[in-house]
Amino acid sequence: MIAVPLFSIPPIISLLPLRTMDKLSSIAKFKASCPFLGRTKTSTLRTLCTSTSPRYPSLSRLTEKATECPVMGPALQLRSGQMAAGYASLAGTAEFNKIPEHKGVLASPSAASAEKCPHASKALAAARMAEDLANLKNEKSAKAASAPSTSKAPATAAGCPFHAATAKETKRKSTPGGFDYEQFYTTELEKKHQDASYRYFNNINRMANKFPIAHTGNVKDEVEVWCANDYLGMGNNPIVLETMQYVGLARASMLFFTHAIGRSRTLNTYGHGAGGTRNIAGNTGMHLALEEELAQLHRKDAALVFSSCYVANDATLTTLGSKLPGCVYFSDTMNHASMIQGMRHSGAKRVIFKHNDLQDLEAKLAQYPKETPKIICFESVYSMCGSIGPIAEICDLAEQYGALTFLDEVHAVGLYGPHGAGVAEHLDYELQKRAGQSPEPIKGSVMDRIDIITGTLGKAYGAVGGYIAGSMDFVDTIRSYAAGFIFTTSLPPINMAGARASISYQRLFNGDRQLKQLNVRDLKGRFEALDIPVVPGPSHIVPVLVGDAALARLASDTLLAKHNVYVQAINYPTVARGEERLRFTVTPGHNMEQIARLAQAVDQTFTELGMKRTSEWRAEGGRASVGMPDAQPVEPIWTDEQLGLLDGTAPRTLKAGQERVVDARAVRITREKFNNLLGPGEEGVDMDVGVAQVVEAVAPGLTLPTPPLEASIPTAVSA
Amino acid sequence: MIAVPLFSIPPIISLLPLRTMDKLSSIAKFKASCPFLGRTKTSTLRTLCTSTSPRYPSLSRLTEKATECPVMGPALQLRSGQMAAGYASLAGTAEFNKIPEHKGVLASPSAASAEKCPHASKALAAARMAEDLANLKNEKSAKAASAPSTSKAPATAAGCPFHAATAKETKRKSTPGGFDYEQFYTTELEKKHQDASYRYFNNINRMANKFPIAHTGNVKDEVEVWCANDYLGMGNNPIVLETMQYVGLARASMLFFTHAIGRSRTLNTYGHGAGGTRNIAGNTGMHLALEEELAQLHRKDAALVFSSCYVANDATLTTLGSKLPGCVYFSDTMNHASMIQGMRHSGAKRVIFKHNDLQDLEAKLAQYPKETPKIICFESVYSMCGSIGPIAEICDLAEQYGALTFLDEVHAVGLYGPHGAGVAEHLDYELQKRAGQSPEPIKGSVMDRIDIITGTLGKAYGAVGGYIAGSMDFVDTIRSYAAGFIFTTSLPPINMAGARASISYQRLFNGDRQLKQLNVRDLKGRFEALDIPVVPGPSHIVPVLVGDAALARLASDTLLAKHNVYVQAINYPTVARGEERLRFTVTPGHNMEQIARLAQAVDQTFTELGMKRTSEWRAEGGRASVGMPDAQPVEPIWTDEQLGLLDGTAPRTLKAGQERVVDARAVRITREKFNNLLGPGEEGVDMDVGVAQVVEAVAPGLTLPTPPLEASIPTAVSA
Repeated sequence: MIAVPLFSIPPIISLLPLRTMDKLSSIAKFKASCPFLGRTKTSTLRTLCTSTSPRYPSLSRLTEKATECPVMGPALQLRSGQMAAGYASLAGTAEFNKIPEHKGVLASPSAASAEKCPHASKALAAARMAEDLANLKNEKSAKAASAPSTSKAPATAAGCPFHAATAKETKRKSTPGGFDYEQFYTTELEKKHQDASYRYFNNINRMANKFPIAHTGNVKDEVEVWCANDYLGMGNNPIVLETMQYVGLARASMLFFTHAIGRSRTLNTYGHGAGGTRNIAGNTGMHLALEEELAQLHRKDAALVFSSCYVANDATLTTLGSKLPGCVYFSDTMNHASMIQGMRHSGAKRVIFKHNDLQDLEAKLAQYPKETPKIICFESVYSMCGSIGPIAEICDLAEQYGALTFLDEVHAVGLYGPHGAGVAEHLDYELQKRAGQSPEPIKGSVMDRIDIITGTLGKAYGAVGGYIAGSMDFVDTIRSYAAGFIFTTSLPPINMAGARASISYQRLFNGDRQLKQLNVRDLKGRFEALDIPVVPGPSHIVPVLVGDAALARLASDTLLAKHNVYVQAINYPTVARGEERLRFTVTPGHNMEQIARLAQAVDQTFTELGMKRTSEWRAEGGRASVGMPDAQPVEPIWTDEQLGLLDGTAPRTLKAGQERVVDARAVRITREKFNNLLGPGEEGVDMDVGVAQVVEAVAPGLTLPTPPLEASIPTAVSA
Repeated sequence: MIAVPLFSIPPIISLLPLRTMDKLSSIAKFKASCPFLGRTKTSTLRTLCTSTSPRYPSLSRLTEKATECPVMGPALQLRSGQMAAGYASLAGTAEFNKIPEHKGVLASPSAASAEKCPHASKALAAARMAEDLANLKNEKSAKAASAPSTSKAPATAAGCPFHAATAKETKRKSTPGGFDYEQFYTTELEKKHQDASYRYFNNINRMANKFPIAHTGNVKDEVEVWCANDYLGMGNNPIVLETMQYVGLARASMLFFTHAIGRSRTLNTYGHGAGGTRNIAGNTGMHLALEEELAQLHRKDAALVFSSCYVANDATLTTLGSKLPGCVYFSDTMNHASMIQGMRHSGAKRVIFKHNDLQDLEAKLAQYPKETPKIICFESVYSMCGSIGPIAEICDLAEQYGALTFLDEVHAVGLYGPHGAGVAEHLDYELQKRAGQSPEPIKGSVMDRIDIITGTLGKAYGAVGGYIAGSMDFVDTIRSYAAGFIFTTSLPPINMAGARASISYQRLFNGDRQLKQLNVRDLKGRFEALDIPVVPGPSHIVPVLVGDAALARLASDTLLAKHNVYVQAINYPTVARGEERLRFTVTPGHNMEQIARLAQAVDQTFTELGMKRTSEWRAEGGRASVGMPDAQPVEPIWTDEQLGLLDGTAPRTLKAGQERVVDARAVRITREKFNNLLGPGEEGVDMDVGVAQVVEAVAPGLTLPTPPLEASIPTAVSA
């Protein structure tokens, strides 16, 4: 049986950036010809037409409903097929096609079934009429050609009958002969639609207590997240949340107790925002302690936190390049946008070398005198292909040619090395492991040889912000000169406390890193067995080649619609055109059932959409490292020994329903740090932030297991 | 009586970026000649020597202690007086001088008293010996001139006997003939020290439940904050903290109840970080709802949130200027660094017009053809001088010459207009007030005439982040093309929820804005009566002219040391050289006793340090708008009527001990928004975030006053 609602409104209306009023007036015209519209309240229609579909960000909720209508469902498919250009991309079509199946409604109702509906002819007539109206308008606007107040671009309006008829007269500059800014925006957006690189953001609310599940715009509509960069699930680690709770938000928490138990508020607390730049009232003990923790992590003199690592890279490279006399940058082709921006903004010369190509780099370095300041900018893990930079070898070249090394470890910190300091640490795994928590540099180690390390707090550490680490005077110079650091409000102390707790915990506990890599191996293995084209690489990134923007989007939509799998399509400008992909991230929190199910879902989608498999790419000569004729097998950077596979200490992938392992020792030590917020040995400090202390302070009568946090942890590994 | 500890270590050692090991080995040498050092444990010394003084960020705790020593106290003053250049700035000297008085120890012990101490001669001899050693090293390094491995700059070493003797051999590139990067950093930092623009960040931890009090690095050392940009104290507003608590961190909060009451966790919660870019898993309902709230606030089509408003300005102007063909920027001389960076980075032509000078702007606009894309960039409140841009008049020019208007309302949002939308809203106060919460634009209003508004969430809203608001296609273009937006992890949902709660609350409650301005009037009036040189202006900023970098720092230090008043000195590059100032911010949370005490403290400091008063600047012909011969009286932008002074509805300045007024209606409506997180009318949403619901869900047995939050508010104004 097919559900009842009947619709007369082509879905395209909901794709347009119209004001509510305009949409509603257009809907009102068709109330007479559709029983659903006729009997639905205007306020409900307003909501349906202004709110985005919780699951399909390119559609309104009205359109999503319309696909269920026996009249409009087929009409929608027909129209979207007819539109060669404009807002309705191939992906859009895919969404229309997919929804009924997802909803459990019969797919592809035939045109015949539409004919059975008494309103079909009326609705289609109305649509045709509107189309004529639109064409008429287009003719007029074509005549007025370059007049400043022309409406939307004809290309778009032609593809959509309701566009021209309902498009709001966008406020424009009334200056005669002036530049038409709104037209400019429309044209720029049109380009994105034309090449299918226009982005619809999915509404994804990752739930801490259901990791890796998120709800969409509807809290009851849940999906599995397979592309987030919260690589270890630290965004929901209990010690992080505990720390944020009792350092940052004790007051609100205490309101309960104040009322329930009638005691006064006793805890110091820091509220929300930092309230100023680092120089003016926004420099707290939480910021300083975090920077100290970061410096220790990388065994460097100092570290400095920025709004994000985008800002850290941009501000640092802008400052260095503009201040170092005659500075030349040497930049890997695959470098992240933030580095490219920083180098560009500095005004310094920029020499680009082939990805991970030491010969090319050396040839280019050799062209400059030794005394010329040079900075080699590169990454440890290139996040969209998963390749890893030859760090030690680049250090050799840097020393030989007198260059600074600038290493972006954004996709590596927390994930590599025995303490999570990144790939530079990982390359001396045993040496670094033996050095433990000591902040002293290890002479000759790769991490020590790198001059400047940048990292993020927003990915594996599950927090927010970015940083640089290096020598005391280097960091102090950036602190003193970088506009992007100086002239901005610092991040809230609560988030800094959470970030520090996360780093502290990960410095002490290796199990999350190991389990992540084991799960990555598992998924890669499954994909390879299914001939699914994983871009080969030694890291934790699992990129699956698609090779076409619209197809990548369609695959992503299909996985969401049919399998509740959320994996974002990665298109230009994030990757090169022709190398579009799905990029999977597997965390220690994904269980074995989820991983197995994912592999099946991807396999099914490949079949259904006729996507190219590894063997097909190989037959074509390969692309983006997939199916290359001269490909060498790639060894993962985490060895079997490091993963504990040789001595049987490897952690186990979770089973469905099993909770994450939390390390009791790492929790205890991290908590102790916050009990004495200003560092060990500080006198006169008695800040109470641990759960036990909080309860003691506000509710001494309550009996509580001690320590309560650990008691809530199902499987704590040994201390 | 003078306290016991004796010291032999000149304080300069603690100013150097040395490793702990190096400092300690230096201290060890002098253990024999000083009874304090002799009997103090090495671990304690390590702490003293590596940790910064909780109150004086340019000193170590060891140095702070040393000022109490009868031998070293005077020696420190002597030496710091001798040092013409190097790390010991005038401000540094002031700090040494100030500490004993602050500590309640007799100030300025005479040189004679030092002679009485048996260790004085030994200590001074040791100092001289070290000085000789340093000079010897300097001679050597002078010979080795340009060798790559020379140590610190001779200028610094010469000024400090222990510098050269103890300076760590900084790791350097060993490339023969290569550029000396460490030397470069040192030189750049030296410049900052030389012109006293080197910044020491004070450790300031603003406490939510003691607003406007903060603790320094020592939790027991409390100071009054007079310079934060949490202009309304929204960082500790209960509805903000409640929202963050129950939207963002419900899980941790529930741990209490889980254990105490034995019930399972029931709330959805979102943990810490966003876990991805807006395109990849980092686009939550909290982000979307916040942007909707912002668009409504400014009655614009759309809004977009960035990591900060620095990033919003930079990314937006970089994108527009580089994409609009032949774009020309027209930029006010006083524009913020973020706008200047954005315009520069775009590569577009930039024409600078005199601050708030319409004639100059028009003359420059007229030089370009009408069809040339032009953007006029300006601010509503210029934060360092408190002047206000002529917004309506600039809109007239923009329309006449076909330019876009880009208005930075960073220091105005939350503070001006009947709903806190900024100065553009304020200019049509009655009209905007009558329109209430409607999101529809008011045709012809100043806010409607502005094309692009940018604002921050980190100042008056007490949160973190920045945004742009404007037409749908403009916002969509920036969303689709701006690298600084696309390639960065989005801000955590918890912070977005807090920011939205803050905006929602301030849209509904006018009392905080009014009280802030009343307190500003009070403070300005007191300063003017005392002949203290307030830079005149119509806004909430209270800048007090000092006119010298070192003196501004000294005044700031003196206020902190003697009066527990924290107001940061504002030096170059934040303001022009010669216009250095103290910039006071008064909030609704400062009470009348605090305001009166501050005026007295500033007056006393002006006398003590011989700082120039208004009458003296006037005698010199004026500077930075202070004491100008042709000065016109400035009317505050908030009129008596708008402040409720005419009808007796004006809020009253708090008395000591009185708690802030919280508006019950604004709390209730804001809470309702979060009870239905995805917007009114959404079906199937039953997210419980209010306090009452939380208690109901987890602890039905508990009797709790309802609504508990409001019950805790001492003086709620009428709904």
